[in-house]
Amino acid sequence: MTPRGRFIALEGGEGAGKSTQARLLADALRDRGLEVVTTREPGGTAGAEAIRALLLGLDGDGWNPRAEALLFAAARSDHVERLILPAVTRGAWVICDRFVDSSRAYQGGGGGLSDDDVMELHRIGSQGLLPDLTLLIEVRPEVADARLSARDGDVSDRIGGRPAEFHARVAAAFARFAAEQPERFALIDGNNDAGATHRAILSAIKPLT
Amino acid sequence: MTPRGRFIALEGGEGAGKSTQARLLADALRDRGLEVVTTREPGGTAGAEAIRALLLGLDGDGWNPRAEALLFAAARSDHVERLILPAVTRGAWVICDRFVDSSRAYQGGGGGLSDDDVMELHRIGSQGLLPDLTLLIEVRPEVADARLSARDGDVSDRIGGRPAEFHARVAAAFARFAAEQPERFALIDGNNDAGATHRAILSAIKPLT
Repeated sequence: MTPRGRFIALEGGEGAGKSTQARLLADALRDRGLEVVTTREPGGTAGAEAIRALLLGLDGDGWNPRAEALLFAAARSDHVERLILPAVTRGAWVICDRFVDSSRAYQGGGGGLSDDDVMELHRIGSQGLLPDLTLLIEVRPEVADARLSARDGDVSDRIGGRPAEFHARVAAAFARFAAEQPERFALIDGNNDAGATHRAILSAIKPLT
Repeated sequence: MTPRGRFIALEGGEGAGKSTQARLLADALRDRGLEVVTTREPGGTAGAEAIRALLLGLDGDGWNPRAEALLFAAARSDHVERLILPAVTRGAWVICDRFVDSSRAYQGGGGGLSDDDVMELHRIGSQGLLPDLTLLIEVRPEVADARLSARDGDVSDRIGGRPAEFHARVAAAFARFAAEQPERFALIDGNNDAGATHRAILSAIKPLT
């Protein structure tokens, strides 16, 4: 029997270093001979990437918070069914840049939907699937700002481009989720260089290996 | 104070004559000096039409039933907030080709989601808004077939192109909704010519005028 794989999510605000850390973690696991699938939300499958384009690209007033939450849940449903579950079932490690806790923090904490409603959408769309472990990378706002202004292009997308007060609410929401369900979160200090953060992540995933 | 307008939905399977009847009804109401907005689902606003394109056009395996239901609910949320509610509030009559009962019949009755879950998505997306009256146009399968084969183009879209057994389940679901909530449905015999069906509709909407 193939051993069941693992499903790891990386969460945190813009500029936390999630995608860099996803890459470093994937390389480290591959060096151990594991099959690793790296993916991201919204997106990860053809259908979900098409929804991502709608979410990030709509001109004019964008989406109301309920429509936005429904679109994220639809993208996640496709992603879970077509990519995440098949990979985990065949024994792969799936490393996902953002998952349902981002919906809770952005559409819930930041956008005015109740947390119960966000989780209800996740239940209907994806049977409430949760990662085996969620790595919450926390950085001080000035560290995140410095990283973001060093980036080139896609920073000022619709969601990243919101005001600082919005991002503070999001960070507070993430911290609250981790405090409420400590068993499924690992808090990672992302303020230092990428190597230090990577070592903290390797240590956090040790119980899963 | 502007009198509140009316929100009328037309429901029924493919080939029932919904769009023809929507047009005839709109013309008749305009002849009475009323402001009339005709629209359709999925679609009706720029955002919802973009979701419609995703729903009807995806190549390959299409969407799983939960993702599909989430996308319909997202499109409806945009449509309700940006077109239907503003129009009704300013006193217009809104005539909509399909609304939430189509989601109940197609994603619920036909597609394997529970009716509770479909209505839960509608509550989250659109505060559970229901039309003032839903005109359910019923036609015998052979009448619908004859009309569909007389049409040119967009019949074989992803949803219209499903097997006969699927459409029978959908028709049964519509009939059940009307039986369960007779106060919000008017059953319209759509087997005869367009003029006869139109007269039946005018008589059904009389209590709202």
